[in-house]
Amino acid sequence: MPSYTAPTKDLQFVLHDVLNVSQSDTPGYAELDADFTSAVLEEAGKLASEVLSPLNTVGDTEGCVLENGVVRTPTGFKAAFDQVREGGWTALDLPEEFGGQHMPYVLGTAVGEMFSGANQAFTMYQGLTHGAASAILVHGTDDQKATYLPKMASCDWTGTMNLTEPHCGTDLGLMRTKAEPQDDGSYKVTGQKIFISAGEHDMADNIIHLVLAKIPGGPEGIKGVSLFIVPKFIVKQDGSLGDRNGVSCGKIEEKMGIHGNSTCVMNYDGATGWLLGEEHKGMRAMFTMMNEARIGVGMQGLAQAEVAYQNAVAYAKDRLQGRAVTGDENPDGPADPLIVHPDIRRSLMDQKSFIEGARTFLLWGAQLIDQSHRGGDEAAEGLVSLMTPVIKGFLTDEGYDMTVKAQQVYGGHGYIEEWGMSQFTRDARIAMIYEGANGVQALDLVGRKLAQDGGKHVMAFFDLVKTFIKDSGDNDALKADFLEPLKAASKDLQSAGMFFMQNGMKNPNAALAGSNDFMHLFGHVCLGLMWARSAKAAQAALDGGTSDKAFYETKLATGRYYMKRRLPATAMHLARIETGADPVMALKADQF
Amino acid sequence: MPSYTAPTKDLQFVLHDVLNVSQSDTPGYAELDADFTSAVLEEAGKLASEVLSPLNTVGDTEGCVLENGVVRTPTGFKAAFDQVREGGWTALDLPEEFGGQHMPYVLGTAVGEMFSGANQAFTMYQGLTHGAASAILVHGTDDQKATYLPKMASCDWTGTMNLTEPHCGTDLGLMRTKAEPQDDGSYKVTGQKIFISAGEHDMADNIIHLVLAKIPGGPEGIKGVSLFIVPKFIVKQDGSLGDRNGVSCGKIEEKMGIHGNSTCVMNYDGATGWLLGEEHKGMRAMFTMMNEARIGVGMQGLAQAEVAYQNAVAYAKDRLQGRAVTGDENPDGPADPLIVHPDIRRSLMDQKSFIEGARTFLLWGAQLIDQSHRGGDEAAEGLVSLMTPVIKGFLTDEGYDMTVKAQQVYGGHGYIEEWGMSQFTRDARIAMIYEGANGVQALDLVGRKLAQDGGKHVMAFFDLVKTFIKDSGDNDALKADFLEPLKAASKDLQSAGMFFMQNGMKNPNAALAGSNDFMHLFGHVCLGLMWARSAKAAQAALDGGTSDKAFYETKLATGRYYMKRRLPATAMHLARIETGADPVMALKADQF
Repeated sequence: MPSYTAPTKDLQFVLHDVLNVSQSDTPGYAELDADFTSAVLEEAGKLASEVLSPLNTVGDTEGCVLENGVVRTPTGFKAAFDQVREGGWTALDLPEEFGGQHMPYVLGTAVGEMFSGANQAFTMYQGLTHGAASAILVHGTDDQKATYLPKMASCDWTGTMNLTEPHCGTDLGLMRTKAEPQDDGSYKVTGQKIFISAGEHDMADNIIHLVLAKIPGGPEGIKGVSLFIVPKFIVKQDGSLGDRNGVSCGKIEEKMGIHGNSTCVMNYDGATGWLLGEEHKGMRAMFTMMNEARIGVGMQGLAQAEVAYQNAVAYAKDRLQGRAVTGDENPDGPADPLIVHPDIRRSLMDQKSFIEGARTFLLWGAQLIDQSHRGGDEAAEGLVSLMTPVIKGFLTDEGYDMTVKAQQVYGGHGYIEEWGMSQFTRDARIAMIYEGANGVQALDLVGRKLAQDGGKHVMAFFDLVKTFIKDSGDNDALKADFLEPLKAASKDLQSAGMFFMQNGMKNPNAALAGSNDFMHLFGHVCLGLMWARSAKAAQAALDGGTSDKAFYETKLATGRYYMKRRLPATAMHLARIETGADPVMALKADQF
Repeated sequence: MPSYTAPTKDLQFVLHDVLNVSQSDTPGYAELDADFTSAVLEEAGKLASEVLSPLNTVGDTEGCVLENGVVRTPTGFKAAFDQVREGGWTALDLPEEFGGQHMPYVLGTAVGEMFSGANQAFTMYQGLTHGAASAILVHGTDDQKATYLPKMASCDWTGTMNLTEPHCGTDLGLMRTKAEPQDDGSYKVTGQKIFISAGEHDMADNIIHLVLAKIPGGPEGIKGVSLFIVPKFIVKQDGSLGDRNGVSCGKIEEKMGIHGNSTCVMNYDGATGWLLGEEHKGMRAMFTMMNEARIGVGMQGLAQAEVAYQNAVAYAKDRLQGRAVTGDENPDGPADPLIVHPDIRRSLMDQKSFIEGARTFLLWGAQLIDQSHRGGDEAAEGLVSLMTPVIKGFLTDEGYDMTVKAQQVYGGHGYIEEWGMSQFTRDARIAMIYEGANGVQALDLVGRKLAQDGGKHVMAFFDLVKTFIKDSGDNDALKADFLEPLKAASKDLQSAGMFFMQNGMKNPNAALAGSNDFMHLFGHVCLGLMWARSAKAAQAALDGGTSDKAFYETKLATGRYYMKRRLPATAMHLARIETGADPVMALKADQF
């Protein structure tokens, strides 16, 4: 059975050596000294590895079962959920007035990576609740906040997002679910929603569904969509639970993975709902959840890569097969461990260098969110808005590939469910799809975010890279291995952006045909920047005579690998982008 | 439910327009005129799409069940297997004296692609039998051939390959299964084998296991391994079935995919076996099966990509979502079909251009095998031996990626088992692992095949590319779009080979660290060559005033896509290779 070890040391490195969180003037960051974050991460890591991780296989094997309208979660899930609740892990960053601890989002994200790595399907119940609570926090009335948030902060009540219908996913303007206004100010919601994660289950007293629907007579398409709060049980004035609402789970989907999460078809039959935010502005409210959810999904890509990698390393050290080509390394044994073989190394280094770079990228993104939300920093807001599709799309595409590589290390055993490696790939696969399939992320990036506010945010990104290189220019240890490759990669990204500017006006397809490559190119440059920053921090620690030389030297070697062997992908993506629309659009539909 | 349409037209194009099979002087090829191959392919395609394809989901859902020592295959498998037998599809290329039709291997491969695409798990029963029969054909005594081959040719008896043991897969020298010589010339085989595909099932009267084992007192390691025929039921002198042999299925593995194939733990308890080939030369005999099996597995990569692509295209044309950025293409409908979106196009073109190039590559490899086996052409033998790890490794790595891309086109529905796209990826995943994991293929390519016979075969490959370019040099229609990119890619491959030569002697890790990249680089150049040949053929057809202009124009556009958007990957692989061993080997094992 696979295991999970919390990567607390690396998380600490990112928070303190690279992001210097406790020296930041972002409100709340002063508390984040190394001892404090270490204590939180150790505690969360223990829960992840000892409680959540052992349930990961159970969840995959048993799945969720719908019987007589009730969904039974896998054995042990409810008890574990109680432990998570009791430990206060469900609302780390929510305001104290609603029962949260108001910790920075960056710390919540670090904890989230561990929970997700240990058990993605389980952690989604909590993650979706957090997203729904955020939407109510931002768009709800005082009354709505008071009614729902304390119970959602504690996960006594969980939350869901209801967007997709059988005939529409990305194109929500086609939505058919309707919400008819009632005399008492409520609405009757009727329609069917599909792919509703945590839609129905037995781990909470109530489930607060956030549902997109159209109010009859409103504008056509996406502009006529509003968001509604539709609780499973109506909440009475005194906060106690009243009648069962007209919403029910019609079916649990059979999925490729995340079997421990109940993915439901939800039927709304005149269910009572209350408008959240303004009429016809449902998408704006939903995007509050969605942006957070997208960062969270990027985190899942990283988290599954991490747990798969950990197990691949253990197997590669343990499994004796063949001999090192440069001479026996385990002469007393019948064979050498797999890890002596260069191609196994190549695979493990691909994984390790991605994971550590991705972790830094993700936490940097979370730091930007704190700077924006807590510090009112508009530049940070713009930057993270630009980066959100990259975090989501790149980290999940690459994260999935890394789970496939980790599985490959196991040879035939990787294909047998008993060893658990298949589950990591099957679970990781969904992250490329939900919260906007990665093609939609690429479209969002190239079609919207790049040009947002006159291209200000992407210029800010380039400035950031340039400034970093300039400020580090006298560091000879970094120059050849980190700064020059970063400069070259960043130049590729600029050339790609330039190509879009020059050609996208005449023919939008010239830009969109390269959107997926651009997202990956951007992702590589971001990881390149993260590695350069990490290397600078590691070098500083070594220069400062750290007592943990091995850790920082490993960090540098891993970074060098990324810069040398992964970053050159930018040139390929640029080459593809510069072929423009013609190769991609040459065929008519009937020629396929 | 997904469907399968036999790609007969494209197979015909490859066989006749590109490979010109009926004009070849290889024995047996004269029969392969277009009418004949068309009739065979149409008939096989009908069986594939109407009988095998509908059972694909059934096999995945029901799996194989072991009860009281008997394995029950999924509903409908046995009846379908009878149909395959009755149609004479089980021994297309085996000699007539044993009941085969002695057709060229190239035609058998074309048929195999269709069966595999329609139902990989099902087709493996037949495929493994073919491999075992080939080993008996080459290494068996006349008596063994007479006893086993007619029944195996008809698949009344099926066959298996038994290599892996719990503690050894790739490193078969560690094998513990032993074969003790008996006075009557037979052996008693004792040990446990795992991952035995089609190890036990209810579709054949007998199962002929080919088992690797060590004769006590023989040489250590791999040099002490011999191959044995161990039938499930002992075959009596008159050919009728006698006693049940001491071999049994201990367990069926729970796998990620190919559920319709029974992957067994096989226990040999003093089972009676007969030596196949010479004592201690088991690996040589096994390699007869293995090389064929590796080509067959490469075929599976292509076949799963094809079926996944077909369904993705259908979905992309059918599913209405969003609007074309260049203006509505379905103005009367609520939205445009997915296929209008550039990023969906990009994905479909990646798939289509891979599949058609891969098909040509595979059938070219099969043609080389015919030239070697039937024509005694040693150069062809050397070339296909060099190419075998590329066919296996590249086509399965890429084939898997293509199934993931096809699944992505479906969005959320791709993750739901009901739609069938998940099965294609889960089934395709095994092909990267079995018959030598792809890392082993890369090692075989770089560590062995490249330098084989003084590097003669790789030089022959470069000559082939050079000659093709030279011979086509006056073709202006091909020059910029096909010949120049091919030349550049081939130069990258040569540079990589040069790097290995210059650095691999001093440090073998400098070559092995780049083995995976080299395999992919080689694969791209092969597909580039195949596309250039295909484009030349298509151009010739167009110049000749073909009545099927649309087909050949589509072919050219698809080829251009490959050359422009896929082939530039060679530069990235070369860049990685040229970083040598250091980045890959920098860490000590305990630094991971």
